[in-house]
Amino acid sequence: MIIVLRPKITRREETAVVREIRKLGYTPHIMRGVARTVIGAIGDERTHASLEPLASWPQVESVTPIQKRFKLVSRDAHPTNSTVTARGVVIGGRKVQIMAGPCSVESEEQLMRTAVAVKKAGATILRGGAFKPRTSPYEFQGLGEKGLKLLAKARRETGLPIITELLSENHADLVAEYADILQIGARNAQNFQLLIAAAKTGKPVLLKRGLSMKIEEWLLAGEYILANNNAGLLFCERGIRTFETYTRNTLDLSVIPIVKQESHVPVVIDPSQGTGKASLVTAMCRGAIAMGADALLIEVHPNPSEAWSDGAQQVTLEGFQTLMDDLRPFIQAAGRE
Amino acid sequence: MIIVLRPKITRREETAVVREIRKLGYTPHIMRGVARTVIGAIGDERTHASLEPLASWPQVESVTPIQKRFKLVSRDAHPTNSTVTARGVVIGGRKVQIMAGPCSVESEEQLMRTAVAVKKAGATILRGGAFKPRTSPYEFQGLGEKGLKLLAKARRETGLPIITELLSENHADLVAEYADILQIGARNAQNFQLLIAAAKTGKPVLLKRGLSMKIEEWLLAGEYILANNNAGLLFCERGIRTFETYTRNTLDLSVIPIVKQESHVPVVIDPSQGTGKASLVTAMCRGAIAMGADALLIEVHPNPSEAWSDGAQQVTLEGFQTLMDDLRPFIQAAGRE
Amino acid sequence: MIIVLRPKITRREETAVVREIRKLGYTPHIMRGVARTVIGAIGDERTHASLEPLASWPQVESVTPIQKRFKLVSRDAHPTNSTVTARGVVIGGRKVQIMAGPCSVESEEQLMRTAVAVKKAGATILRGGAFKPRTSPYEFQGLGEKGLKLLAKARRETGLPIITELLSENHADLVAEYADILQIGARNAQNFQLLIAAAKTGKPVLLKRGLSMKIEEWLLAGEYILANNNAGLLFCERGIRTFETYTRNTLDLSVIPIVKQESHVPVVIDPSQGTGKASLVTAMCRGAIAMGADALLIEVHPNPSEAWSDGAQQVTLEGFQTLMDDLRPFIQAAGRE
Amino acid sequence: MIIVLRPKITRREETAVVREIRKLGYTPHIMRGVARTVIGAIGDERTHASLEPLASWPQVESVTPIQKRFKLVSRDAHPTNSTVTARGVVIGGRKVQIMAGPCSVESEEQLMRTAVAVKKAGATILRGGAFKPRTSPYEFQGLGEKGLKLLAKARRETGLPIITELLSENHADLVAEYADILQIGARNAQNFQLLIAAAKTGKPVLLKRGLSMKIEEWLLAGEYILANNNAGLLFCERGIRTFETYTRNTLDLSVIPIVKQESHVPVVIDPSQGTGKASLVTAMCRGAIAMGADALLIEVHPNPSEAWSDGAQQVTLEGFQTLMDDLRPFIQAAGRE
Repeated sequence: MIIVLRPKITRREETAVVREIRKLGYTPHIMRGVARTVIGAIGDERTHASLEPLASWPQVESVTPIQKRFKLVSRDAHPTNSTVTARGVVIGGRKVQIMAGPCSVESEEQLMRTAVAVKKAGATILRGGAFKPRTSPYEFQGLGEKGLKLLAKARRETGLPIITELLSENHADLVAEYADILQIGARNAQNFQLLIAAAKTGKPVLLKRGLSMKIEEWLLAGEYILANNNAGLLFCERGIRTFETYTRNTLDLSVIPIVKQESHVPVVIDPSQGTGKASLVTAMCRGAIAMGADALLIEVHPNPSEAWSDGAQQVTLEGFQTLMDDLRPFIQAAGRE
Repeated sequence: MIIVLRPKITRREETAVVREIRKLGYTPHIMRGVARTVIGAIGDERTHASLEPLASWPQVESVTPIQKRFKLVSRDAHPTNSTVTARGVVIGGRKVQIMAGPCSVESEEQLMRTAVAVKKAGATILRGGAFKPRTSPYEFQGLGEKGLKLLAKARRETGLPIITELLSENHADLVAEYADILQIGARNAQNFQLLIAAAKTGKPVLLKRGLSMKIEEWLLAGEYILANNNAGLLFCERGIRTFETYTRNTLDLSVIPIVKQESHVPVVIDPSQGTGKASLVTAMCRGAIAMGADALLIEVHPNPSEAWSDGAQQVTLEGFQTLMDDLRPFIQAAGRE
Repeated sequence: MIIVLRPKITRREETAVVREIRKLGYTPHIMRGVARTVIGAIGDERTHASLEPLASWPQVESVTPIQKRFKLVSRDAHPTNSTVTARGVVIGGRKVQIMAGPCSVESEEQLMRTAVAVKKAGATILRGGAFKPRTSPYEFQGLGEKGLKLLAKARRETGLPIITELLSENHADLVAEYADILQIGARNAQNFQLLIAAAKTGKPVLLKRGLSMKIEEWLLAGEYILANNNAGLLFCERGIRTFETYTRNTLDLSVIPIVKQESHVPVVIDPSQGTGKASLVTAMCRGAIAMGADALLIEVHPNPSEAWSDGAQQVTLEGFQTLMDDLRPFIQAAGRE
Repeated sequence: MIIVLRPKITRREETAVVREIRKLGYTPHIMRGVARTVIGAIGDERTHASLEPLASWPQVESVTPIQKRFKLVSRDAHPTNSTVTARGVVIGGRKVQIMAGPCSVESEEQLMRTAVAVKKAGATILRGGAFKPRTSPYEFQGLGEKGLKLLAKARRETGLPIITELLSENHADLVAEYADILQIGARNAQNFQLLIAAAKTGKPVLLKRGLSMKIEEWLLAGEYILANNNAGLLFCERGIRTFETYTRNTLDLSVIPIVKQESHVPVVIDPSQGTGKASLVTAMCRGAIAMGADALLIEVHPNPSEAWSDGAQQVTLEGFQTLMDDLRPFIQAAGRE
């Protein structure tokens, strides 16, 4: 921690700060500058009590942490890339994985048609929401367990592992019984009880970035998974909330190199939620792959205009086939498969 | 819904849109303008399927909802101000209520000293966290049930009703057994399963605004409480996330007149989380009261620099007394008690 | 500056950093911590070259400035509140000043009616735009010099000093010839050439906060005025840009206590631009006054629905009279006149 | 325009709105819905007076424009991609152009070394700042005309056309005498007087996106260039301001497909300002190229740690050579040269 004192304080006020720093277990280093005195407090910030409350002392101008607060997700802790495997599909390896399927599971016919089509086009994992978090209580909330059963059936028929959202601690066992990967949605990204419940199922967990989550906070939320003895963590960027209204969210592709520098955990990009517009999905996928994404999560629907949720951002079955063909040269250019 | 078509589309493309609008149960009104054709789709947007997926059609430029999506929280539904009562303390009436206490319950001594002091200074409700949502898994997570028991003890000794946070569906019954008001934190503001669980306890629910929640989304989250047969809803602004780094959050006081215009639900302001700095609390409280807030939620600690969480934003016992004295003329000017 | 080195670097890499720090004129203090080495670089950051480029060195994790970069606007430089006087009207003293008038000067009749009415209601300064910055080149750009002449005429008739916007370096002499206070708009808040030109006229300058300007950047932009020998600086908050779409901007009232703590310069609040909605103006004014604003800047128009610009946020002449009556008890509660 | 009336208003209140719509030259279409009446006002919103002031009427709930406000930058106005030529270098054609050079021109030696090196590595345009807009008045403000002369000399020696920033109307002729492309910085992106002055020089204009500029506002700012008879417009994304603090800005690559859909104007990406970190530049360039950027603007310096401005984001001469080699396969995958 770096504690900056206000100008013109007395020696006694300074001593009080130094004493408090020692009391909390840190070693103070005093640096007297031109205008201000600065105190470096040496000690492990992740195990000692925080010095941040000192900021409320009248003689203190600011308190700044210098250590990163995440441990297990850090590349320092695990210098090589980690991989996550779901029914034999490896995410984080040489092959770029494509997770595709409808926003919501609506019916057997809708899901099967989509599953078969996305598999044929090259998808390697099937996505589909059975439990849906909706902004309004009057919107379609998902088919629930019936949706999970349909997903399991689609898996039997296509062999694709399935990813589906977990949104209640109380559903953790149920959803884990069917799903190969549990998805934690953006609105639950700091629902820490849910993160712990998801981790404890032992299934891989795809953690979406919250709408206004700083990268450090996202990494720390991921820490909740690893710290609960589940190594199957995936980070998924799905757009952040900004002032821009043209798109539903602003897809922040810069997280790809940043998370790769800071962490060993694979990175997934969701261009569908990330933009809210099907017409932007192809370009975002190209960029994501060129920048090193390990997987894409794409919403596909046989008839988007009749989708029960988020129709505007889902691509058609034909559109998905075209998209997959389009991406090939970029996957090659990125040295991936 | 208002559907704007792209310029220069064919009559056939237009007809397809009109047919879809009818199919989903709306009555289309076609308006041919200078550059574009616009279709008004008349029908109740809250009960019909959404027309938003039309936005993915190539001939459609935009689809804009015109109805407000919230019903029960709306002032249309309940033209007079509603009030919420917790152990005889009425929030939303003439009297401005002051909820005060420590960020976290840390010990009997810390809580009792604070409870007695805030009561003496004029607080009418005691706050204190027993379960704490923390950005990092390595930070203090609260005393849990032991904290709840201490809160109950403080209530017995001071007579103040208590408000404390609920952060897991699984704790709903436990927390409701002790608390007079359940608090839903900003990071759980769109954890809809938790909202439903909270509503079902029958206890009043204070719903904090999420870090990047639009006002409409906040009102809709409140709708989850009312739609689950719990009329005891309170909205609490605690600062939104912006680009500014001087304060921890940007406390958006404009929500006071806005929520008062749109809704009948009482409005509470939390200046402690809202700024993250104890030195700004007094000014924010003055503004909140002048603008019509029904209650304030203020963090108070006997020794903020040794607080186990968020010390920088907690005011001292003496500071709280001074604050209460300071607010009196503004409460009067606002025509409140 | 605080330079944090990456973990596990060699002594030689550390030495290179230390050498560079000395080369740029700072004295390094080395603190070896548990996981990382931290170097405090002592020296005046405002006169020495910046150490921030060190952040691009591979062995450096972060570089953090510790000094505040503003000097003349700082309360350290001028511990008492400063005041700004325009034709005898003192801003920053005991009296809260009210600047009111139309968004744009449209005609003699519109301006005179407004000027007379706002004076009668208690306004002490007349506002009105003669040169208007407009998002689109096809919108009304103001009456130009003709507008300035009308403002001068309104001043003759009412005695109210006038404030009007300066938006081009080339107009500085012209606008300063007529205006008593020059207004710099949000979109020009970091148009430093314009700030210098405004400062050099010698007239007081009201500097609006830019749409996404951090408070520190705003204070530094004000520094351009004071550093060019013009002590007549006013800071004006007019709403920042956030994700919220209900209001045009998010009026950040927390700047009142913050600027008062950091600086000696008077603070003005513009609730009209700040919300974009006339129906919110009264509540925002109440809050601003309770929190210690030195002046308000309010848009008033005889017939807002026919205004040539920003009609939705202008209050009527009657509305303004009512507003002024409404504010009286809050001005008293704040200990102002 | 779509005018939504409040529920339960009288027929007389409705008639007043309809009369006002007609008065301003629009044709009203009345649609009576379940809960509300909606009026479509047909007429050209870009030539008629705005109906937005109606939003301040008590019986009106909202007023929503439906037309896009930009004309000349619109792809409707110019369906094929436009190209901009600077000394024979064509931007917007098949070839991806690389603009590279130092943030600031500091000395002849620094500039010449950089110019020769970037040309050798494949850059086709030389960038360098002679006039620098700086947040603080105490920071290096650029060499001014001396810098322009050095740029001209570098052009003579390497044959590379030059791009440099214009930040004052008063410098327009001077800068245009030396520069092949004028750059308008983010902080001046809505300094409309400067846009007009830049347009009138007849030189191509690269318009950076403002820090919190919506895409529509950016396109409208570009409209100021085209409407002033200068067809040489380039849009340049350089990162927007968000809540994230890990990077200096959030580089919004989604603008590439969006501007390509809405407009015919070439798109340039600036990954240096966009991230503020040299270590992220390569990944951002890969993404930009894959997504269809027409040019990149990259800061390169022989010795970033001694740069007089923005050292942390400048890549070294060797780093730039490596970057150019790295990009080749992505340029090919994108079907560009």
